[in-house]
Amino acid sequence: MTTISADAATGGQGAVLLLDRTRSVVDPQLRSTVESLPESIRRIAMYHFGWEHADGTPAEGAGGKAIRPALVLAATRAFGADPAPAVKAAAAVELAHNFTLLHDDIVDEDPTRRHRATAWTVFGIPDALMAGDAMSALALRLLAEDPHPASTAAAARLAACVIELCAGQQADCAFERRGPREVGLDEVVAMATAKTGALLGCACAVGALYAGAGEEEVAAMDAFGREAGLAFQLIDDLIGIWGDPGRTGKPAGADLVARKKSLPVVAALVSGTPAGEELAELYARPVLDAAAVRAAADAIERAGARDWAQAQAAERMARAVEQLSRAVPDLAAAGDLLALAEFVTRRNR
Amino acid sequence: MTTISADAATGGQGAVLLLDRTRSVVDPQLRSTVESLPESIRRIAMYHFGWEHADGTPAEGAGGKAIRPALVLAATRAFGADPAPAVKAAAAVELAHNFTLLHDDIVDEDPTRRHRATAWTVFGIPDALMAGDAMSALALRLLAEDPHPASTAAAARLAACVIELCAGQQADCAFERRGPREVGLDEVVAMATAKTGALLGCACAVGALYAGAGEEEVAAMDAFGREAGLAFQLIDDLIGIWGDPGRTGKPAGADLVARKKSLPVVAALVSGTPAGEELAELYARPVLDAAAVRAAADAIERAGARDWAQAQAAERMARAVEQLSRAVPDLAAAGDLLALAEFVTRRNR
Repeated sequence: MTTISADAATGGQGAVLLLDRTRSVVDPQLRSTVESLPESIRRIAMYHFGWEHADGTPAEGAGGKAIRPALVLAATRAFGADPAPAVKAAAAVELAHNFTLLHDDIVDEDPTRRHRATAWTVFGIPDALMAGDAMSALALRLLAEDPHPASTAAAARLAACVIELCAGQQADCAFERRGPREVGLDEVVAMATAKTGALLGCACAVGALYAGAGEEEVAAMDAFGREAGLAFQLIDDLIGIWGDPGRTGKPAGADLVARKKSLPVVAALVSGTPAGEELAELYARPVLDAAAVRAAADAIERAGARDWAQAQAAERMARAVEQLSRAVPDLAAAGDLLALAEFVTRRNR
Repeated sequence: MTTISADAATGGQGAVLLLDRTRSVVDPQLRSTVESLPESIRRIAMYHFGWEHADGTPAEGAGGKAIRPALVLAATRAFGADPAPAVKAAAAVELAHNFTLLHDDIVDEDPTRRHRATAWTVFGIPDALMAGDAMSALALRLLAEDPHPASTAAAARLAACVIELCAGQQADCAFERRGPREVGLDEVVAMATAKTGALLGCACAVGALYAGAGEEEVAAMDAFGREAGLAFQLIDDLIGIWGDPGRTGKPAGADLVARKKSLPVVAALVSGTPAGEELAELYARPVLDAAAVRAAADAIERAGARDWAQAQAAERMARAVEQLSRAVPDLAAAGDLLALAEFVTRRNR
């Protein structure tokens, strides 16, 4: 089993191997489940997962990193259970995640996802919307048809999580429409928890359920995933302002050009500092040129929000580990979960 | 119990009372379930169901006719079971139905539903889309959290049905984009079965599951609902061409103005008759004025498609009754189901 220090020493190699192993186990299940869809929906799902080109010819598979299914399987292992019976549940969580991506891309009018044209730009909004609807139902159908004794509780959790994800996405859109001084830090933390933390928490909780864990352990695993998810979002937001386009595919300042109300941005806006005021004035402009983007990043840093976000990310990871130790007293058994949590929050290194 | 003949004698009064009774039992469950949603989603769902105005003040409740929940409860009664434990399942089916309405209105760009502005025109497409996503998950969550022994099988059926509804809606959109001679009658029958029949069949099957019916009976109940659903669609399509705006709120010719490829229209287009050719030419025009709409209706009739649709509706109802008698050999016990099936197909009288 991968230990924390071993993974840290190999710079996330443990997590990378874990994600590779997860894909090799979960992808066949995911694919056969997607292939059961009616043809008009199947082709869109196959494209979205990167298994087919738009014309239906086979593609290399540029699907996601499989972090959520890896969390499901690692959570079952953390309780000493065989992860094999949880593969369907892991696929269900990944389906639910991808349904939200399909719909978020429509709502956010995003043209690209995983370096390819988004499904709605290729198949049109109505067909992509319906494909997302069907993938959401497919995720819950997979659990309803799974005879495992934990499948019903897992379905209830996943359905509740989807509702939370929808509310989080709505809040995200609502904040974008508000003025720079009209979004509170608590609100944006709650939004990030709903939009990012909820599904990571659900993945860990589902894994625990499949391992036969008790109610308190399941709740602690959910909290672990949520805290790690918020740490991940904070790091992702820092990358959206300062981070490394070579490694992430995200140019520095991208979130500022889009005037996103990310966690560090809102922290700066509500800081009550002159730098926060400067940022508010920059965000009130109709367009931000390169100089304005640099000035905005500088203002966020001077407002103390870069340090705040980094400290918060560390604080959230500490809370995540605390929750994990409640669920799994012997942290050595939870090495894979820690490796995954560290992997997702280490993207800027 | 309402008998067939009693209901026929009262011109659908039995079904009307049944629907009223259903609403009085299912609405409180539906409402408390909807009220559990996060506020940003709840307000859209409350508006959609007619329980609130757009500003959040209470409204009279212009919700649906509750045909699907009535079918669920009538199906449990047909097997001699108490319908009370199936109320959650009935609410789940109604939630799933309303989720599809929310999304269909977005996709079809429909401005009104039940004589009110559609949710997407009031709350915007992103928020209405997310509210629909959440309502879909809520339907399956309600079943996953229902301790009834049939709830998991019901959830699997409902999830499979949602996938079929999505494929049906996609087909409907695809047919609208094709030329008048490019849609086959089999295709449009399959589309109507998926889009309308599937959920009526699912409602009946779910009721049977909650009554503890066997696999064959459940399948026959599903087939009953599907056949009745297709009969309903055929009648609805006839109303869309010739029917009674006073009683239905649908002006005569509405489907022709929109150049819908409804069942009678496609039957005429593929009839190989000169009248079918006339219709194809009319449908190829950029706009249909009142005279052209009358000419199109006349062409459909001369092509034999009005008679075909009426005969098909009668044929489908006969098949529905045959399926019902397989599931419930004593048809007296299935009086409410027959009353509901006759009610939905008698809208043009």
